[in-house]
Amino acid sequence: MAEKIYTIGLDLGGTNSEFGIVDAQGNIVEHTKVPTPAFPDAETYVDACVKVLMEIIEKAGGLETIKYMGIGAPNGNIITGSIDYAPNIAWAHNGCVPLAKMFSDRLGGLPVTLTNDANAAAIGEMTFGIAKGMKHFIILTLGTGVGSGIVIDGKLVYGHDGFAGELGHVNIKQGGRLCGCGSHGCLETYCSATGLAKTTKEWLHESDEPSLLRDIPEEDINSWEVEKCARKGDAMANRIYDYTGRLLGRACADFMAFSSPEAFIFFGGMAKAGELLLKPIREAFDQNLCSTFKRTKPQFLQSTLNGAGAAILGAASLAPMK
Amino acid sequence: MAEKIYTIGLDLGGTNSEFGIVDAQGNIVEHTKVPTPAFPDAETYVDACVKVLMEIIEKAGGLETIKYMGIGAPNGNIITGSIDYAPNIAWAHNGCVPLAKMFSDRLGGLPVTLTNDANAAAIGEMTFGIAKGMKHFIILTLGTGVGSGIVIDGKLVYGHDGFAGELGHVNIKQGGRLCGCGSHGCLETYCSATGLAKTTKEWLHESDEPSLLRDIPEEDINSWEVEKCARKGDAMANRIYDYTGRLLGRACADFMAFSSPEAFIFFGGMAKAGELLLKPIREAFDQNLCSTFKRTKPQFLQSTLNGAGAAILGAASLAPMK
Repeated sequence: MAEKIYTIGLDLGGTNSEFGIVDAQGNIVEHTKVPTPAFPDAETYVDACVKVLMEIIEKAGGLETIKYMGIGAPNGNIITGSIDYAPNIAWAHNGCVPLAKMFSDRLGGLPVTLTNDANAAAIGEMTFGIAKGMKHFIILTLGTGVGSGIVIDGKLVYGHDGFAGELGHVNIKQGGRLCGCGSHGCLETYCSATGLAKTTKEWLHESDEPSLLRDIPEEDINSWEVEKCARKGDAMANRIYDYTGRLLGRACADFMAFSSPEAFIFFGGMAKAGELLLKPIREAFDQNLCSTFKRTKPQFLQSTLNGAGAAILGAASLAPMK
Repeated sequence: MAEKIYTIGLDLGGTNSEFGIVDAQGNIVEHTKVPTPAFPDAETYVDACVKVLMEIIEKAGGLETIKYMGIGAPNGNIITGSIDYAPNIAWAHNGCVPLAKMFSDRLGGLPVTLTNDANAAAIGEMTFGIAKGMKHFIILTLGTGVGSGIVIDGKLVYGHDGFAGELGHVNIKQGGRLCGCGSHGCLETYCSATGLAKTTKEWLHESDEPSLLRDIPEEDINSWEVEKCARKGDAMANRIYDYTGRLLGRACADFMAFSSPEAFIFFGGMAKAGELLLKPIREAFDQNLCSTFKRTKPQFLQSTLNGAGAAILGAASLAPMK
């Protein structure tokens, strides 16, 4: 029997499901994908996935070379191994889909672990990224929403039901914007890429201040376009990043009171704005921090795993649950 | 050599330092105390403590019968074993006092563990109280301030520097009351016993609504007096508990997004108000909770260890750090 030397990572997103076969050094040696929404139900989705996955498994040397598979997915629950009521995935929208078991059954009983995408990112950073060697950190993923993975003593926090680490849903503004979760003023309604775009549209409507942002068709406004305008020196675009970063920094001051991490790591496309976002985060953090913590400042870091493959690496680093 | 069968607990408060010798069933078999502020410096304080402590140790069978000592103290840090810049203790006000080592040196090298008072309460609840058998819970101590102990997977969260679990200092009101920590709007400025008394005084000044509260001399207003008026049916006193409980409930909804505990436990004199406080907590929690968590509701419980000895039992249950 061959030595098991690879793991499989699945980055299950609303648009694509990307598979990678990963070696011990974090290289993606084989890669394939399937369009997530193209299937009427979970059964046909998993069948189609296994079909293309087996092709790259064979290329890598067969199922005997695979140690385990990890899945990072929205609303993924590591305790049950299922995706629960995921708003952006039609075949997992109205119930709990036991995806880990469904893959395992079709892959000869291979151990399959599933968790939410932000937790997978946290494990990826710990295994291959900027959090190597860290025991206490919080990763915030800034995308369509705000996800989070909390690491304490080198272990992810899952809570009693597998749903811990939903920091996108702490309240940062009483009576603020309505969130998909039903509450008002959740962090992600302001500090996700979607939230930043919404701020931009609101501010453009509320004043007639000249701005490069006015040259962008409203439907094309996104965090990347706003970043480009900010880098050209546009005043309003810079204020939008400042406003968004300050809200994040204030939230991080509260998170500090919870687990006192050594670092906050920002992940996802919007985090690529770098200092444009990190500077106001640091400033607002310092202004809002309880004095107990002022002697041991955390670092504010940009993910080094951003870009293609990061989420796959994270998923592939998920060790099987005992 | 005798079998080691006892532990020592020290509840170090701003007024008294209470020592207990505790058996494996959680009975305090010997008890003594020392007035905390009666000493000019930490050296004379510890000397005086050890003198009275040795008397009860001898009664219990001598130092050979003691396994270890635990200390619960404000601003106590388990990693360094010191009390750091404790605002209410004159001899630990302006620096770090290595109290665990000072006691250990005078007690023949006995292992001494020190942590903050809320963490000690959490361990007390886990060992002898209502949290027996729980792996994921948060205790909130409602006293002069609001302290917290966070338990995840059966272990207290200390963070990278020993200062995690300062939930009294999360922000619940932008630009709210000034806190001793230097920030504005911290949870403890509204939801501690002190905060509740402050709300009472403010509301009495702001209206001329008739209330039993007006019969209490202003300097005697405290959470217990307000509770008594509320139980007599006084409308304003009831609204004050409702307001305070709702702020706590909103904060708990945010804490849920962090560690998804199975229970919140309220500890300290103000928690004895029971349903007067727990009912608005539950209501505001439900109104503010992210829908992800709505399928697995936590319990809201009143400590069963409240009253004399609780903090001593908590401290005595502190296992030595490895």
